[in-house]
Amino acid sequence: MTARQNPSGSGDPYPDLDRNRDRNPYLIVSSDCHAGLPTEEYRPYLEARFHREFDDFLGQRDARIEESTRLGIRNEGFARKWFEENEEGLRGGWDAAQRVKELDGDGVAAEVVFPDADAVDSRTAAPFGVGLGLSGDQDPALGMAGAKAHNRWLADFCAQHPERHCGVALLPVTGAVEEVVAEIHRAKESGLGALMIPSMWVDRAPYHDRRYDPVWAAAAETRMPVVTHSGAAPRHEYGDHLGIYVSEVTWWPARPLWFLLWSGAFERHPGLRFGVAESGCWWLPNLLWFMDRLYLGAHGGKKLSPFAELKRPPHEYLDRQVFVCATNTKRRELAQRYEIGVDNILWGSDFPHPEGTWPATRTWLRDTFHDIPVAETRRMLGGAAAEVFGFDTAALAPLAARIGPTPAELGQPEDPEGRAAVEESWRGAREVGRHWLTGHDFPYVGTGPGPAAHVPTAPHRAEEAGS
Amino acid sequence: MTARQNPSGSGDPYPDLDRNRDRNPYLIVSSDCHAGLPTEEYRPYLEARFHREFDDFLGQRDARIEESTRLGIRNEGFARKWFEENEEGLRGGWDAAQRVKELDGDGVAAEVVFPDADAVDSRTAAPFGVGLGLSGDQDPALGMAGAKAHNRWLADFCAQHPERHCGVALLPVTGAVEEVVAEIHRAKESGLGALMIPSMWVDRAPYHDRRYDPVWAAAAETRMPVVTHSGAAPRHEYGDHLGIYVSEVTWWPARPLWFLLWSGAFERHPGLRFGVAESGCWWLPNLLWFMDRLYLGAHGGKKLSPFAELKRPPHEYLDRQVFVCATNTKRRELAQRYEIGVDNILWGSDFPHPEGTWPATRTWLRDTFHDIPVAETRRMLGGAAAEVFGFDTAALAPLAARIGPTPAELGQPEDPEGRAAVEESWRGAREVGRHWLTGHDFPYVGTGPGPAAHVPTAPHRAEEAGS
Repeated sequence: MTARQNPSGSGDPYPDLDRNRDRNPYLIVSSDCHAGLPTEEYRPYLEARFHREFDDFLGQRDARIEESTRLGIRNEGFARKWFEENEEGLRGGWDAAQRVKELDGDGVAAEVVFPDADAVDSRTAAPFGVGLGLSGDQDPALGMAGAKAHNRWLADFCAQHPERHCGVALLPVTGAVEEVVAEIHRAKESGLGALMIPSMWVDRAPYHDRRYDPVWAAAAETRMPVVTHSGAAPRHEYGDHLGIYVSEVTWWPARPLWFLLWSGAFERHPGLRFGVAESGCWWLPNLLWFMDRLYLGAHGGKKLSPFAELKRPPHEYLDRQVFVCATNTKRRELAQRYEIGVDNILWGSDFPHPEGTWPATRTWLRDTFHDIPVAETRRMLGGAAAEVFGFDTAALAPLAARIGPTPAELGQPEDPEGRAAVEESWRGAREVGRHWLTGHDFPYVGTGPGPAAHVPTAPHRAEEAGS
Repeated sequence: MTARQNPSGSGDPYPDLDRNRDRNPYLIVSSDCHAGLPTEEYRPYLEARFHREFDDFLGQRDARIEESTRLGIRNEGFARKWFEENEEGLRGGWDAAQRVKELDGDGVAAEVVFPDADAVDSRTAAPFGVGLGLSGDQDPALGMAGAKAHNRWLADFCAQHPERHCGVALLPVTGAVEEVVAEIHRAKESGLGALMIPSMWVDRAPYHDRRYDPVWAAAAETRMPVVTHSGAAPRHEYGDHLGIYVSEVTWWPARPLWFLLWSGAFERHPGLRFGVAESGCWWLPNLLWFMDRLYLGAHGGKKLSPFAELKRPPHEYLDRQVFVCATNTKRRELAQRYEIGVDNILWGSDFPHPEGTWPATRTWLRDTFHDIPVAETRRMLGGAAAEVFGFDTAALAPLAARIGPTPAELGQPEDPEGRAAVEESWRGAREVGRHWLTGHDFPYVGTGPGPAAHVPTAPHRAEEAGS
């Protein structure tokens, strides 16, 4: 997500980033990590008038664990082993001193801190379930109380190494607008740097509603990116079928993107930044192609009215204002990065969740990035996230120099010939990019020299065929 | 959708299809067309005890048109022009003699007939809105009455050229199971060949529920494929933002696919065939990759329980039992056909809807298929659909020979060198196919000789990196 037109990640508009491509360690920013207190310890951060409801909430813990186990999200045997083997490191979920040791071990200089350190047994659930399960139909009073409790603790937590942590404030955005706006300013002043809103509004106003304009304005004014994070989903529809949940749990946090976009929120609030966390990024190329085609007037749209709320095609808003905290990026996704936009992909370790890369991040990075160009790797592993979340890369540089893996440690070739071979292997995909914008008829995803020479057949009209 | 392991569409297990690849006309089957009576004419097909409710329904027509216009689905100026310019052809929406003239003109030998001929002004809406808007929360009595009225008319309509039409019975599947099963058998005996269920169950039982087992069993027994079709969506959430509707209207009909799959419906009912109509097929590769990875035990799944309802990975159920009525396929989608599975893609003209290819189907086919191998074109334009919907290709062959476009008319090369060049241009994509199953680390989508030689760097472990 930058203002640049070229999604390839080439060019060097970031003089503050160390760009010695050949040998210097990476400055790694994880755009998706988690921290949270053992639930009972939130009590001092919670207004006293909610303590009775808090006791009720604590009493329901076993029921919550049982529900997760039934759906299959939680596996008893795995849980036991996970906690036994990682006891010390998992304390980094709320202990800042332990946490920086774990980050150092992984080579991660800085991180964006979402709630819910414990994704296995939910022992660090924020009060009243306002963590990753934050939902639009939450009781507004309890929701804001729980969010403030977490936000207060998180600000204290991040203040211990402010250059390394960007705390994400929980924002029950479907509540009273003036309270929501006030919490944005309070969170900003306390040192937090981003805002998490529910993926699902459930029975409240959808995010296209103009009632949210003051919220988006406040987020833009405070330079707090607004983020959804995977977790919430209509579980009551799934029975005990885990596969259903997993197959669509990434769709719900992505959904607000097109609600904001088509209702003109990005046009009205050019300073608004919106991101989708831990939901992958494989879905973005198709969505972007589909939305661009719709806007640019594809064949199928001829019976449809124009889109008055937008002044430019969807991909321009995306490159200007949207990012994806893509967490442990898959190689299939990396192959699609010229359609997604290299600058829109923000890697994350998901520490300390078991589905993340910790504590083997260095090995994981080598396995995943060894044949990716170094300049692009720098953007995806930290450069883009540093800009979105406002990290001080100059302040982080000495730390990165000490703990960051080098390109060589990631298995990336150091010699000019090796580098050139890597660049060349992606040339076709890079040149075709978003094929619907670059005049290419077909996509080109994967390594190789480039599309086949056009087979000399019928004169081709891309507009008619709806490429 | 076939039992074959190879999704490339090569091989020739269909001796009844004309496979003279070089010159013979295509036998084209449109897997997505629409027919419906002008609404008031449904009266004689509707049980008399529902006539009063039918009058009420007719009286609400203006309100429905107004709602479509407000959301922007309907454009007044376009609507006027559309009906003026196509008056004669549009009569083919319910007039069988006119219809076959239009099909002939488009080169379409046979078709699958969904409801709602008029997608612009809804003048042919089936009673009580049970057409493309068929919804799970429909009043059960009215829903079944309206469905039966349409189904009765449709059977009469298809009987005029039974070899050319496969009528899709409307099936309000969330109602009483015994009535639903009875309607399946009644529809089959009346000559209809497929079943359309609502994309959305809304507040009724989701499709993983075992209550539907007798329905899936009856569909399998009668060899009636079960299909969802785009149209329904939670419009109350969209305000007047058409872009939001269009951005997710294809997701809702696809959603039942993973509800059926993960709940084991395809395992319990190996004769069940399920398809998604007019929702594109670009979403299928990512879904399949995602579901296969989950099942095959990816890194992220290690905290999850196994999937007891399935006996094989998702792609095997897909190739065996699932198909996509992909309608006017886009070139971006054709480029992904080796991940989707050539045999899973069923082209359609969407006659007589304005977002379809009628009346310019021949030109459209040339623009879209001119550089696609002929054998694969035969599968996507008709071969696969003929199998799924049980068309008698021998009976259709003389008609296809008369009206079907030849490969040359589609701009496909006739000379062996030209043919070889086309095949060669897709070699890389064909060989890589579903990269997560063929041992390839990255996808390869598009034309070109194949993936770049692997850059000699770190030893790579695909399992760890989660390709």
